Amino acid sequence: MTYATQLGILGGGQLAQMLAMAAIPLGIRCHIYEPAADAPAQHVAYHHQSSYAQQATLKIFAERVAVITYEFENVPSTAADYLATLKPIHPQPKALTICQDRLFEKQFVTKQGFMTAPFTAVDPTKGVSQSIDKIRLPAIAKTRRMGYDGKGQQRINTLTEAYQVMVDLAGQDIILEGVVNFTRELSIIAVRDAHGRTVRYPLIENHHHQGILRLSLAAAPNVHPLIEAQADAMAKLLTNALDYVGVLTIECFEVMTPNGPTLLINELAPRVHNSGHWSIEGSMTSQFENHVRAVCGLPLGPVAPRGISAMINLIGDIPNPADVPAGTFIHLYHKDARPGRKVGHLTIVARNMASLLRKIEECRALPGVWLPTL
Amino acid sequence: MTYATQLGILGGGQLAQMLAMAAIPLGIRCHIYEPAADAPAQHVAYHHQSSYAQQATLKIFAERVAVITYEFENVPSTAADYLATLKPIHPQPKALTICQDRLFEKQFVTKQGFMTAPFTAVDPTKGVSQSIDKIRLPAIAKTRRMGYDGKGQQRINTLTEAYQVMVDLAGQDIILEGVVNFTRELSIIAVRDAHGRTVRYPLIENHHHQGILRLSLAAAPNVHPLIEAQADAMAKLLTNALDYVGVLTIECFEVMTPNGPTLLINELAPRVHNSGHWSIEGSMTSQFENHVRAVCGLPLGPVAPRGISAMINLIGDIPNPADVPAGTFIHLYHKDARPGRKVGHLTIVARNMASLLRKIEECRALPGVWLPTL
Repeated sequence: MTYATQLGILGGGQLAQMLAMAAIPLGIRCHIYEPAADAPAQHVAYHHQSSYAQQATLKIFAERVAVITYEFENVPSTAADYLATLKPIHPQPKALTICQDRLFEKQFVTKQGFMTAPFTAVDPTKGVSQSIDKIRLPAIAKTRRMGYDGKGQQRINTLTEAYQVMVDLAGQDIILEGVVNFTRELSIIAVRDAHGRTVRYPLIENHHHQGILRLSLAAAPNVHPLIEAQADAMAKLLTNALDYVGVLTIECFEVMTPNGPTLLINELAPRVHNSGHWSIEGSMTSQFENHVRAVCGLPLGPVAPRGISAMINLIGDIPNPADVPAGTFIHLYHKDARPGRKVGHLTIVARNMASLLRKIEECRALPGVWLPTL
Repeated sequence: MTYATQLGILGGGQLAQMLAMAAIPLGIRCHIYEPAADAPAQHVAYHHQSSYAQQATLKIFAERVAVITYEFENVPSTAADYLATLKPIHPQPKALTICQDRLFEKQFVTKQGFMTAPFTAVDPTKGVSQSIDKIRLPAIAKTRRMGYDGKGQQRINTLTEAYQVMVDLAGQDIILEGVVNFTRELSIIAVRDAHGRTVRYPLIENHHHQGILRLSLAAAPNVHPLIEAQADAMAKLLTNALDYVGVLTIECFEVMTPNGPTLLINELAPRVHNSGHWSIEGSMTSQFENHVRAVCGLPLGPVAPRGISAMINLIGDIPNPADVPAGTFIHLYHKDARPGRKVGHLTIVARNMASLLRKIEECRALPGVWLPTL
């Protein structure tokens, strides 16, 4: 069995950095394609610094690598389509097309038999009021493209607010989503290899603040067997439907129904995901290594947990590693601190939930940390 | 507390590579100083490619970093002494002077109250026969400098062989060591921070073949409490005597005496060590991270084991990662395979010794692996 030992990554942020670091022990070198000069991943990969519009540099990049992947879903489709004529791209660009657009994403998910929040595309010739009739208020207006970390989203409680949103988001394609009364957010990190074998990590419980992920717990506590079964089905069917190779993240709402809990799919991310960072120390194989293994043609590693883990994001401020409690793993991304910016994360691996919660509390006062009441 | 975020490393091999990869999540960038163009660490660090004799490039290197360390003990002393005038070097160059020379090393160890094999310097004006009178045959002739992986060593069983050794090693400073009847080789990986706090990893049992380390087990099984106490004393006293900052490896023979087992010190390595590679996955903090923490002025991380570990060296041949058993961690060094060359290692972390031995056996037939009967 041969495998790719030169891997191209579109994007050079912290996800590319952690992918490249997972690739090195496998004998794989990474090349990042990234317009920014100060990309975190440049420290661990060859940096092809150029615009995604430059076909000449895209060609040189493609010549240097055996296979191409990406760390973000907003890769310009012209670049992805051009590169696909030169080298294999995993996950395949069709996944990008779907995941770049909230409408396509929800249509895809429902077609596979899974539920989402109620949604409707806003017809710009008719305005929001007709769409609101379909969804009911309160609702959330979201741009179909380029939203992340809560950006491009506005909640609508009244018709007056609805008209304001039309002004604020004028010129962009919008969908309206019904507000879901969920008990918690859970994410599924699935990975499928080139032979169609899919595994998934334990379900992850995610806590947000100001639209940004702050805390993930893995495995999520108190998961109902129905939810586990749904997660299995989602991991398998969604990756199969896309003939997917690599990590696919499925962000879900857990909702209570008279028949028990169920999952609604909120978003798909065709890449490694912030809620999976705990897997570097907390799993037998990290999400980064398994993504690299999948796209480079190696068998997947086991996803058994090495304890119960927490991942705490560092947002907007960087603690001194000297102040981080002993035994808590720190990962800094070599980015300057700016409000709302992800600059690192902490991981805790414990034997049981009581010990994990105690160790999480010790991090509460650190710069960059926001924690819910636990 | 401030800490160094630009770390210079003399040498650019796999030890520097793993040091740099441990430094990145701490927000620390590494700069390697390494004459070879194809150094493994260049993929994860700035590469200053120049000779150790070039004072001008040494100066540029020193200007780029806040503190300097090294991955090998044979750093030319002129380079180390010059750099020490520009930036702090940890471990301090005195450790190099001692560890570069088998005679100084043994004199230092015995001065601190610890035992070694019987040894004597060969007086070149008098030849080996007088030295042999002191040590008795069989003995081992070793060059005082530049020996590693069994190089620069010859066993002497007869006086005839002794004269042949004098011819083979002519012009080099030699010591003669008595052959020790040891039960096994154990290594101690100690690490001391800038405030003088020393911790050590669990004792490691090492198995060699053709003079090269092949297998390490950590924690070593069946260690007598007397040996643990000796290891504690060695870690503390030897690092204190050198006012040491960083990882110090103490290679020992375990010898049976009428009063119980005891340790003789065979060699000191003033650096991270091959027998400590298991700590990347097998310890709460790897030897690489703790070395970086110590030399950069961060508090040490905990050295508690995450199970019982084995490290299997890959020598002279590289297995396909696809053939490595699931759950066994592989680390390749991005070096071409040549006979006797260390090109990677495998790590296994298990819950108990029975499970560990079973998983080690699964690796026996892999290219590059040599295992003793277990």
